[in-house]
Amino acid sequence: MIPDLRENIFAISTAPGTGAVAILRLSGTESHQKVFGIFRSKNLREKPDHAQMYYGEIFEGEEIVDRVLSVFFHAPKSYTGENMTEIHCHGSAYILDRIMQLLVNAGFRAAEPGEFSMRAFLNGKMDLLQAEAVNDLVLSQDKGSHKMAMKQMRGHFSKRLSELRKELIDLTALFELELDFAEEDVEFANRDKMLSNVISLKEEVDKLAESFKLGNVLKHGIPVAIIGEPNVGKSTLLNKLLGEERAIVSEIPGTTRDSIEDTIHLGQHSFRFIDTAGLRESRDAIESIGVQRSYEKASQSHLILLLFDATEKNGDLIKAKIEDFKINIKNFEQKKIILVFNKTDLMVEAPSGLKEILEYDCVFISAKRNENLEELKQHLLNNTIGNDPGQDIVVSNVRHYEALKASSKALEQSAEHIRMQLPNDLTASHLREVLHHIGNLTGEISNEEILSSIFGNFCIGK
Amino acid sequence: MIPDLRENIFAISTAPGTGAVAILRLSGTESHQKVFGIFRSKNLREKPDHAQMYYGEIFEGEEIVDRVLSVFFHAPKSYTGENMTEIHCHGSAYILDRIMQLLVNAGFRAAEPGEFSMRAFLNGKMDLLQAEAVNDLVLSQDKGSHKMAMKQMRGHFSKRLSELRKELIDLTALFELELDFAEEDVEFANRDKMLSNVISLKEEVDKLAESFKLGNVLKHGIPVAIIGEPNVGKSTLLNKLLGEERAIVSEIPGTTRDSIEDTIHLGQHSFRFIDTAGLRESRDAIESIGVQRSYEKASQSHLILLLFDATEKNGDLIKAKIEDFKINIKNFEQKKIILVFNKTDLMVEAPSGLKEILEYDCVFISAKRNENLEELKQHLLNNTIGNDPGQDIVVSNVRHYEALKASSKALEQSAEHIRMQLPNDLTASHLREVLHHIGNLTGEISNEEILSSIFGNFCIGK
Repeated sequence: MIPDLRENIFAISTAPGTGAVAILRLSGTESHQKVFGIFRSKNLREKPDHAQMYYGEIFEGEEIVDRVLSVFFHAPKSYTGENMTEIHCHGSAYILDRIMQLLVNAGFRAAEPGEFSMRAFLNGKMDLLQAEAVNDLVLSQDKGSHKMAMKQMRGHFSKRLSELRKELIDLTALFELELDFAEEDVEFANRDKMLSNVISLKEEVDKLAESFKLGNVLKHGIPVAIIGEPNVGKSTLLNKLLGEERAIVSEIPGTTRDSIEDTIHLGQHSFRFIDTAGLRESRDAIESIGVQRSYEKASQSHLILLLFDATEKNGDLIKAKIEDFKINIKNFEQKKIILVFNKTDLMVEAPSGLKEILEYDCVFISAKRNENLEELKQHLLNNTIGNDPGQDIVVSNVRHYEALKASSKALEQSAEHIRMQLPNDLTASHLREVLHHIGNLTGEISNEEILSSIFGNFCIGK
Repeated sequence: MIPDLRENIFAISTAPGTGAVAILRLSGTESHQKVFGIFRSKNLREKPDHAQMYYGEIFEGEEIVDRVLSVFFHAPKSYTGENMTEIHCHGSAYILDRIMQLLVNAGFRAAEPGEFSMRAFLNGKMDLLQAEAVNDLVLSQDKGSHKMAMKQMRGHFSKRLSELRKELIDLTALFELELDFAEEDVEFANRDKMLSNVISLKEEVDKLAESFKLGNVLKHGIPVAIIGEPNVGKSTLLNKLLGEERAIVSEIPGTTRDSIEDTIHLGQHSFRFIDTAGLRESRDAIESIGVQRSYEKASQSHLILLLFDATEKNGDLIKAKIEDFKINIKNFEQKKIILVFNKTDLMVEAPSGLKEILEYDCVFISAKRNENLEELKQHLLNNTIGNDPGQDIVVSNVRHYEALKASSKALEQSAEHIRMQLPNDLTASHLREVLHHIGNLTGEISNEEILSSIFGNFCIGK
């Protein structure tokens, strides 16, 4: 359900909790007038100057609720494209509650998550891709995700798609034009030329879709799985890796970070440990379920740390276990594998007969004693994907990826039709399908369901 | 140590964590110029308009770090009285880190807690009492604490003190004038009149000092202790009281509260449970230490819940325990006492022979089954102090209370000197002492140590 866009809305736009200042953000045609009912400033005239901050007071009756700064933006020169107001009050939960209650009494309602951005989209201030980038920007945690979101917000991806769309429209028009003259058996364009156009469009779409692998990594970190038999020290290793990271906090006072959620940042890269909750619980998990889950985790990851007990002297046993992993982990051959031998503190001699597995990266550590963890980190860094979207467009959103995959499939079908010299109307209908998917991406074509699902994931106040 | 006030400073002024928007607040003579080095806006001229928001971009070299709104305040028309800038950026920790790094590179340093308010004080924008009220306002959690802070911020307390101070100066001058003519044995003022002036000043100061009891309650909640033998259900009761409160959250989305810290809000009142951490741990605590701590807690509280096991049939035993509490709890007679009989779910018959203790409020509950907790809450509400500072000035700060107590003592000594017809210079020196204490309160007299300790408790960014 799309919320009623004629209503005047408000939300706290700053992070939750106590702070020196908090911002209440308001949008809607009558938002200025309604605020005048509770805000007084000696400098405020009937029509406030655009983007000018006014010092004044929020009143409930004759009681001063807070001294605040208010700023008014006139439509369409605002984030949403509507009349907007920001009230900058003291960041106390009690004061925010009081002012929100006054706003409700004045006829405002609380904004849905993402409703400001949805209004911005519907008022033509930005396309869907740019709106999604705003949210990505707020959530960006490192250089890669930030740069990617910033580029998308600035419209790089939108521009490329609009070029693609233009080519597609031209091409579709050619097919449909021929259709009109079908009975006269006229052929307007060279069929080979049209086929090669479709193929080159498909290649371009595929390239975008393939960038999702990098995009996903940039957005969420490189997926890493730690697997191994019980008691080889999986959770100790994880805790050491995370624990050290947690100690590295920015040295600038006032800096705060969200909980790191089992992601570690090394250099410019983020590594995301898959299902570490499971790892931590692994002692309690029933054996067979645990093993199965390990295989699944590993199958979803880019990097796998295969953890072994360094006190195991029988190299053949280790090789057998690796063979076992090979069979059970999907796409094992495409993964980056690091063999980690833990518990060197207890090791008397290295496992024998390991030469054959030297095709893999190998590192001996003692997680317990923090020995050789730096070397392990270096191994992680040697097996990264990229960390920079570079000059190319990088897709980081599952929705975009799926639309591109669907486009690619429809383009493939068009190409097949041309090759088989099937009727033009079929080919044209596939090209129309591609146009539909691409229109969905930018929001040129949209429906309530899509919009609700996209904006519903935004944070409040954005 | 007072930080170097010539430096340009910055701090995040909004609450920590991820939000749609965050504010970086900057202050210092060159803060505008320095921001121009990293912020570009097509509308920004060399001298920005006062309090006008400019839409633009933060750059690191040629890379756009964020799209932001910046607003510039010209000295002295700003919070600190200095040139100030606010940068409103996307509320991502990564982006904030990046911009703060740019600010550091541009020559800003991170502000100390309360440094903005300290600068405001030192630049004469507000007195100490008002500065302290700003922090109280940010931390205010209910109607009483909010109203009190707002009044103090608006200068009610300062005004009263400055009237007192004026009277004191006049009075002191009279004594010192007489001193100059001492050898001529002239008496300028009627001694009885002067004595009555000193006494009435003392009464006024005492009245302010006494208001601290209410002020402390308004600020922190009414102190309540729950005491009783092991296993009568103290922590169960506490958890039930807190647990229910925790479920009552504001129904407006986006509202957030800090952790309740074992304070419950009933109606317009807050009840603060003293040392509930201890209560929760009580099972593990060594018996004798636990009991001693209970007595201390109870001695500090306004209200005491004496918890008994309702299955105890021997009323005499209960009376003996009450006698025990009377002996061990300081000022027991001045406390509000509620006898709470818990575990009515297990009770067969009420304890016998309780008539004699009916001088106390009595309530039978089952904390476990949530029975009669509403009645208990009503008993709490029947034993409150005030919840409204009303028209009078209410002191809520230990520092203020102590200065007033010291003033009262010095005034008492002056009065005593006058009564005993001791030399005027001694009397005058006591009056000077009062002037000193009152000057300290408003900040007319201040030193580094006082300022550091006051502002060091402020939140960052204020």
